[in-house]
Amino acid sequence: GVSKNIAVLAGDGIGPEVMVETVKVLKKVGELYGHNFTFKDYKVGGAAWAATEAAGETPSHLPAATLAGCEASDAILFGSVGGPVDQQHEPQWKDCEKNALLGLRKRFKLAVNLRPSKVYPFLSHLCPLKPSIIGTGVDMVIIRELVGGIYFGEHKREGDKAFDVMEYTVEGIRKPMTFAFEAARLRRKKVTVVDKANVLECSRLWREVAREVHKGYPDVELDFMYIDNACMQVIQKPSFFDVVATGNMFGDILSDAASVLPGSLGLMPSASLGDGLHMYEPSGGSAPDIAGKNAANPIAQILSGAMMLRYSFQLEKEASAVEAACETVLRSGKLTGDLLEESERKNAVSTSDIGEAVVKAL
Amino acid sequence: GVSKNIAVLAGDGIGPEVMVETVKVLKKVGELYGHNFTFKDYKVGGAAWAATEAAGETPSHLPAATLAGCEASDAILFGSVGGPVDQQHEPQWKDCEKNALLGLRKRFKLAVNLRPSKVYPFLSHLCPLKPSIIGTGVDMVIIRELVGGIYFGEHKREGDKAFDVMEYTVEGIRKPMTFAFEAARLRRKKVTVVDKANVLECSRLWREVAREVHKGYPDVELDFMYIDNACMQVIQKPSFFDVVATGNMFGDILSDAASVLPGSLGLMPSASLGDGLHMYEPSGGSAPDIAGKNAANPIAQILSGAMMLRYSFQLEKEASAVEAACETVLRSGKLTGDLLEESERKNAVSTSDIGEAVVKAL
Ligand SMILES: CC(C)[C@H](C(=O)O)[C@@H](O)C(=O)O
Ligand SMILES: CC(C)[C@H](C(=O)O)[C@@H](O)C(=O)O
Repeated sequence: GVSKNIAVLAGDGIGPEVMVETVKVLKKVGELYGHNFTFKDYKVGGAAWAATEAAGETPSHLPAATLAGCEASDAILFGSVGGPVDQQHEPQWKDCEKNALLGLRKRFKLAVNLRPSKVYPFLSHLCPLKPSIIGTGVDMVIIRELVGGIYFGEHKREGDKAFDVMEYTVEGIRKPMTFAFEAARLRRKKVTVVDKANVLECSRLWREVAREVHKGYPDVELDFMYIDNACMQVIQKPSFFDVVATGNMFGDILSDAASVLPGSLGLMPSASLGDGLHMYEPSGGSAPDIAGKNAANPIAQILSGAMMLRYSFQLEKEASAVEAACETVLRSGKLTGDLLEESERKNAVSTSDIGEAVVKAL
Repeated sequence: GVSKNIAVLAGDGIGPEVMVETVKVLKKVGELYGHNFTFKDYKVGGAAWAATEAAGETPSHLPAATLAGCEASDAILFGSVGGPVDQQHEPQWKDCEKNALLGLRKRFKLAVNLRPSKVYPFLSHLCPLKPSIIGTGVDMVIIRELVGGIYFGEHKREGDKAFDVMEYTVEGIRKPMTFAFEAARLRRKKVTVVDKANVLECSRLWREVAREVHKGYPDVELDFMYIDNACMQVIQKPSFFDVVATGNMFGDILSDAASVLPGSLGLMPSASLGDGLHMYEPSGGSAPDIAGKNAANPIAQILSGAMMLRYSFQLEKEASAVEAACETVLRSGKLTGDLLEESERKNAVSTSDIGEAVVKAL
């Protein structure tokens, strides 16, 4: 068995409660497969702001102690951050998501973001698209460049003018692109690069690098699609996509659009891969409205844990076992409220019930 | 009655055939309401490239004669441009859309783009979304800034690096924003500004200007939404939106996503408003695969003509009459192939049949 240290950044809202279930599941995996996982909690987001403020430190959404804890770990398991909609202007919540997430991405060079979007056939009634559109099924992975592009370029205000600079280097593109081809090889062998190459110079560079990297993967098909068209196809013909490779902003937009298809963000894990140290987080937000009610869906967080087993610890068998256990639970009809029509929501199962069911199914 | 000169830029693919029907309809409007519309044809896109080349001139997608013709007109009616997918690298088609469209937008300062997206209840079976999602109906207008932002900022390549600059001024934002509030006043009185203000300085400027312009429209509700979330809501809860105001790139993406909802691009008109001179064009492309077959849907082009009557000539009654006539024809079940399920496509009505039916319905 392996020994691994996991930095747990549960964060705000539903973060802590879905994290508890995930840690339960991972501990069970450790037991069953003879691994030694150590979990250490660190504050992030509004929770970190409150804690640092209470301790008389400069308040921060991403304190030095948290960064040091991550640094000392083998992987980062992240929950969610952010406060209620009507409190966004309070210092505790202002820029909270941005500070925490962009800070972590930058510090640990989390350059490759991986977001699978899959419609489970037995949950396809939750997909907002008609069955005729879902067609043969939706099963795509979006690879988003995560530390470049317009989100990390210069942002400037000069009197009545504002500027934001989109910037890409060959090296910065090669990393996600190579990952995309590797991923495609294990899947349906198709990479679609999404860009706006008819207008943007950065997109032209993406295409150049894509063609260059493609040479090493002649068994994988490569095609290109404009972002405006891609957003149409996600709604119109989502089964078209296998692996999508795209820049930071287009990936942000497209992966959020695609995340709607499975019917709930509560099903959507993600991985952000750095040089050695990686971070795992559900795609949904902190959902303050249902926080503390034992009502949130922990599946996205648990599946993020499975991705950690796979990508940080190379424990493929264990990762698949967790994924299979989640599927078994969902298939059995044990569902949280987000996966039920309004009229059936009284039958909703709690966060901890789901966690325990997954443990049992392992 | 009024006398108006209309520059007709039919372009490529299905452009000419849908334009013929639109001119028929507009001539009939002239007859019925006592107006004098003069139509003059000018080349644009691949057609212009071929014509200028044949004439021994420097080939161009947007020749000087076309620009001069537009300049001398009261409104521009645009068809569509662009060649077959497999010929994009040939000089006739390379950068064709970009050169023609961005060229016209820049030259005539077409700063405000208007794209309505409406699901006709009697065609809602064509919407890719489930009836439960369409809910009370989809009826939104996207106001897209069209001559600024990252599409018109600096594009630069330096060795291994590429740059594109997003740039906005207060003045450049005020124009579409004011238009959005005016439009909202005639509708459900809600403006949603779509941006990425948690990351981009330009978006923060958009919010400032929105709040400032809002002061003149206290009867209209203003809210803000991040582009990633907006792309989710278009799929998940499209009835939420009334008027959307957004920048060039986000508008490009969001309006294309929204254009899928009515079930066919063949239903989607648009207007691009400049200082005095405006341009009208269907949202769909040149569809070379069905060009010349009398099979394309002319409704989007005809409805673009209706927008011209409204926004360029202030002929509201006539515009409404054309819109009503189109709806009557659609409702009667006379439908082109794009509006029919595959199994019923043998019953498809031709382009010219639709044009004549609209003329008759007037
Ligand atoms: C909080 C924000 C900066 C972030 C982003 O856009 O990158 C978030 O939307 C995401 O996608 O993880
Ligand atoms: C051709 C292209 C430059 C253009 C744009 O993105 O502006 C088109 O997609 C559009 O939306 O009219």
